[in-house]
Amino acid sequence: MGAIEELTTELARLPGIGRKTATRLTYFILKRTPDESRRLARAIESVAERVRECSRCGNLTESDPCELCEDRRRDPSVICVVEEAADIGAIERTGEFRGLYHVLGGLLAPLEGVGPEELNIDRLLQRLDADGDSAVEELIIATNPSVEGEATALYLQKLARPLGIRVTRLARGLPVGGDLEYADGVTIAEALSGRREL
Amino acid sequence: MGAIEELTTELARLPGIGRKTATRLTYFILKRTPDESRRLARAIESVAERVRECSRCGNLTESDPCELCEDRRRDPSVICVVEEAADIGAIERTGEFRGLYHVLGGLLAPLEGVGPEELNIDRLLQRLDADGDSAVEELIIATNPSVEGEATALYLQKLARPLGIRVTRLARGLPVGGDLEYADGVTIAEALSGRREL
Repeated sequence: MGAIEELTTELARLPGIGRKTATRLTYFILKRTPDESRRLARAIESVAERVRECSRCGNLTESDPCELCEDRRRDPSVICVVEEAADIGAIERTGEFRGLYHVLGGLLAPLEGVGPEELNIDRLLQRLDADGDSAVEELIIATNPSVEGEATALYLQKLARPLGIRVTRLARGLPVGGDLEYADGVTIAEALSGRREL
Repeated sequence: MGAIEELTTELARLPGIGRKTATRLTYFILKRTPDESRRLARAIESVAERVRECSRCGNLTESDPCELCEDRRRDPSVICVVEEAADIGAIERTGEFRGLYHVLGGLLAPLEGVGPEELNIDRLLQRLDADGDSAVEELIIATNPSVEGEATALYLQKLARPLGIRVTRLARGLPVGGDLEYADGVTIAEALSGRREL
């Protein structure tokens, strides 16, 4: 397989990129200077090599613990629980949240064989409990407003309540069935400020 | 700038990829194995390093002259002139053309300062003339059916006619104002078979 064909095939593996778009991108890349193309190639390689999961919150990061966990100006009494690391960026862009995060790495989906063990829940419990020495007072559950998101929220609520932690949920400002990652900042900000007790 | 931010920025430079799509692609790449990501990175680097212009026809190729120019089974008496190397793939996929190609690398656009010197026309004349020793009998002009495409076709016709070469143009099966690269195979095949004398 030639280099052009190979790149088109690799690009077509990306989500939302079909064969025609992949071809168009390949020829665009071909027309750029080798330096520009190398910069893109190196950027892909460095995320593959340098980015890891934060051992504390599960965020994707180049340093462990991640920048957010290490930021002393952030409020450690509130933890916002999200499905994916990409969701953190969506919430951060609103500028409305100054607490910490916890990334589940998925949602409970018993029919697909995703139980609590498959998610990053053990480490969340350690953060909440910490031998009775935890600073956490509130858990904001920011999973998507889908069936799995709601089920996961209820499951976490049952775990956190006995520890005396307030559990809240993003207000239903988010369109039901939508995806947190693609919501606009204003909607996310409204959902944050209108969060309700579970 | 962190690795994630850097990759998002690089991806957002590609045509048709906005900030949100770039973010989605970045997180998709992050979730893959490092090996898969490295394969994509290497594919980008190898097109940047290995792919060059064919010194004969201007096609993008890893070997010079390109595979098409070197293919003895192709008919050297017909040359199909296209705007971009990507257009060759579109015509080849129809399986209806067995001649050679010539890539102009653009279209005449005097208002934007693109004159004949900016295009790959000198080498086309050499192929057509070759001290009266040329095998070329027909020039099929397959530039896009746009104003610039028509102007370029007329310009090439004026150059080729005195050499006793038949000059044809793809039939107007292509939608006017459209782009050859994205046309479907049947339309391109029809346009090839219905080509008319200029």
